[in-house]
Amino acid sequence: MAEDFVVTPWEVQGEVDYNKLIKQFGTKPLTESIIKRIEKHTGELHYMLRRKIFFSHRDLDVLLNDYEKGKKFALYTGRGPSGNTHLGHIIPWIFTKWLQDKFDVPLYFQITDDEKFLCKPNLTLKQTHEMGYDNALELIALGFDHKKTFIIVDTDYSKTLYNNAIKVAKKVTASNARAVFGFTNETNIGMYLWPAMQAVPCFLPSILTGEKIRTLIPAAIDQDPYWRIARDVAPKLGYPKTAAIHNVFLPSLTGPRGKMSTSTNMESTIFTTDDEKTVRKKVMKYAFSGGKDTVEEHRKHGGNPDIDSSYQWLRFFEEDDKKLKKIYEDYKSGGLLSGELKQILVDKLNNFLAKHQKNKEKARDKLDKFLLKD
Amino acid sequence: MAEDFVVTPWEVQGEVDYNKLIKQFGTKPLTESIIKRIEKHTGELHYMLRRKIFFSHRDLDVLLNDYEKGKKFALYTGRGPSGNTHLGHIIPWIFTKWLQDKFDVPLYFQITDDEKFLCKPNLTLKQTHEMGYDNALELIALGFDHKKTFIIVDTDYSKTLYNNAIKVAKKVTASNARAVFGFTNETNIGMYLWPAMQAVPCFLPSILTGEKIRTLIPAAIDQDPYWRIARDVAPKLGYPKTAAIHNVFLPSLTGPRGKMSTSTNMESTIFTTDDEKTVRKKVMKYAFSGGKDTVEEHRKHGGNPDIDSSYQWLRFFEEDDKKLKKIYEDYKSGGLLSGELKQILVDKLNNFLAKHQKNKEKARDKLDKFLLKD
Repeated sequence: MAEDFVVTPWEVQGEVDYNKLIKQFGTKPLTESIIKRIEKHTGELHYMLRRKIFFSHRDLDVLLNDYEKGKKFALYTGRGPSGNTHLGHIIPWIFTKWLQDKFDVPLYFQITDDEKFLCKPNLTLKQTHEMGYDNALELIALGFDHKKTFIIVDTDYSKTLYNNAIKVAKKVTASNARAVFGFTNETNIGMYLWPAMQAVPCFLPSILTGEKIRTLIPAAIDQDPYWRIARDVAPKLGYPKTAAIHNVFLPSLTGPRGKMSTSTNMESTIFTTDDEKTVRKKVMKYAFSGGKDTVEEHRKHGGNPDIDSSYQWLRFFEEDDKKLKKIYEDYKSGGLLSGELKQILVDKLNNFLAKHQKNKEKARDKLDKFLLKD
Repeated sequence: MAEDFVVTPWEVQGEVDYNKLIKQFGTKPLTESIIKRIEKHTGELHYMLRRKIFFSHRDLDVLLNDYEKGKKFALYTGRGPSGNTHLGHIIPWIFTKWLQDKFDVPLYFQITDDEKFLCKPNLTLKQTHEMGYDNALELIALGFDHKKTFIIVDTDYSKTLYNNAIKVAKKVTASNARAVFGFTNETNIGMYLWPAMQAVPCFLPSILTGEKIRTLIPAAIDQDPYWRIARDVAPKLGYPKTAAIHNVFLPSLTGPRGKMSTSTNMESTIFTTDDEKTVRKKVMKYAFSGGKDTVEEHRKHGGNPDIDSSYQWLRFFEEDDKKLKKIYEDYKSGGLLSGELKQILVDKLNNFLAKHQKNKEKARDKLDKFLLKD
């Protein structure tokens, strides 16, 4: 029997039952038929779709109906800036890049330096703003095209955001915000407005063009509540409701419970800035193994890839289905030892990070081309 | 015995006991000694000081200490834009103009188109923004110098305002805002931030110059609670606490209770756009008379200027003490009839308004020079 689990934007605890979560959040499962509809337009399927890493949605069917009638849409996702970008953050960004390429649509990427400043007692606005720029480089490093990618660091674009946020805010009571965001009487008044600031990019493609353009938010499922208010308000302001496509969490390296998060598993979290040695050390030390206790037993009975963190992580990072299948079978049969499986993951991650880190350096010169400012 | 009265930023009811109000609000009376200190710097006293129309303050003594040590200050006042500017609105502006001229200090004038949009269900942001520009013309018509007068229409300057408001907001809990502004769970989340947006101009002279410049707010006493939060937060952000100087209300034309307000006395309110005929009609019809029932009785016993609205209004608009004194005595002695007293007020107001309306037309071409935009 599945254990209890908790998923909110602030907390992921326990072994998550994603089917239950779909019911709990009121989203829809990403069915084979909707995945086929995507494939019809993209020609192929991203491995995160093939593997059901993206598994849930809101109004993606409605968005596809519109798209099939010739209506464009726009992508929206974002980041609450912090000093550290880890691999869990960039899973939805990798998929977002694929969506942008395949559908040829703009991406609005919101970096909420205002929110992080407001909710973190010890951070200054200067610090969150600088972190925001660093986080922007992490996004750009994934290869986004500046001609159709618009990065909003909130305080650089706050005139446009605020002047539209008040239109959202007028439709949202303190009660609404308390229910969805858990605000209390002790929450500061900046946080109270903030759900409206976060809603604006949902409508920005419509605001900027004067057309009714739906947005699609690729994000981890725990972020879904953040846009419930935006969806409620959309029809009242004459905008299409934002659609969403949700991914499962990159699991903690230490086991299949919870998600990778710096707040609960700092030491075992792999950051995009980690060097080769650090990645190796973390995987070797922390990656939960589905292997047997001795080499002999492992060779004889085989390991269990379904609970092995290294294998689970390869599902997120190894694009080649055949390679992944072979690893699965070799591990299950006992031909592949736990140490060897860990080494495959280490090589995969280090290969990715070496390229990513080089691209991040190159991104510095391009940053200005991406930033929306007013 | 004085009746009960209520004074909040949203409501003024009953016959106001201004001495009680000073205790209730925790402000200080504007004593003879502080008025003398002002006179030392200004050379003369504005009639609103001589007549105790300005009667209360916060930290004006501290501000004068600083000023006497060579520290400049700045003025800050403002307007929640509405379609109608009435004579009650411009009383503190007339005095503000005198302070600016005498002390040669800048004025920051905030027009809160965002707030009026947020709190008035039926107004669009476009409407409050347009009203804001119209209200700005009313201010400029009083003769302010564009070189030292900076008009902030909030949504034109919302980047600077928001990026600083969040620094204020981080120090203010929802509880604080509820206590001071009466917000509830049903209040929209835009209003929750708004106390912080209104606090920013208190600190703007310091923010823009990098020096610590105290602001002085001339405003009607009922507006005082609005800046309590700004004063609480100031030391936490390293800014001087805002000082204030408060005026009594221009009484309702219909009698000495309450204040002139479009929400309670629409028909008897005199607007700056009223023509000569309208002003005459309103004064003749609505101005509460302190006179006797018949001409004979009035000639014999005299009238009571202390409860006569026309006389009370002349205290706000007739600058010449000698003329005012003569009117007082003539009315009290019965030499001046109620109709004649009303006519003096009508002439005074129409004379003022004719000039004001002409100046407002001329102000259109100058508006841009006054506006702060980002």
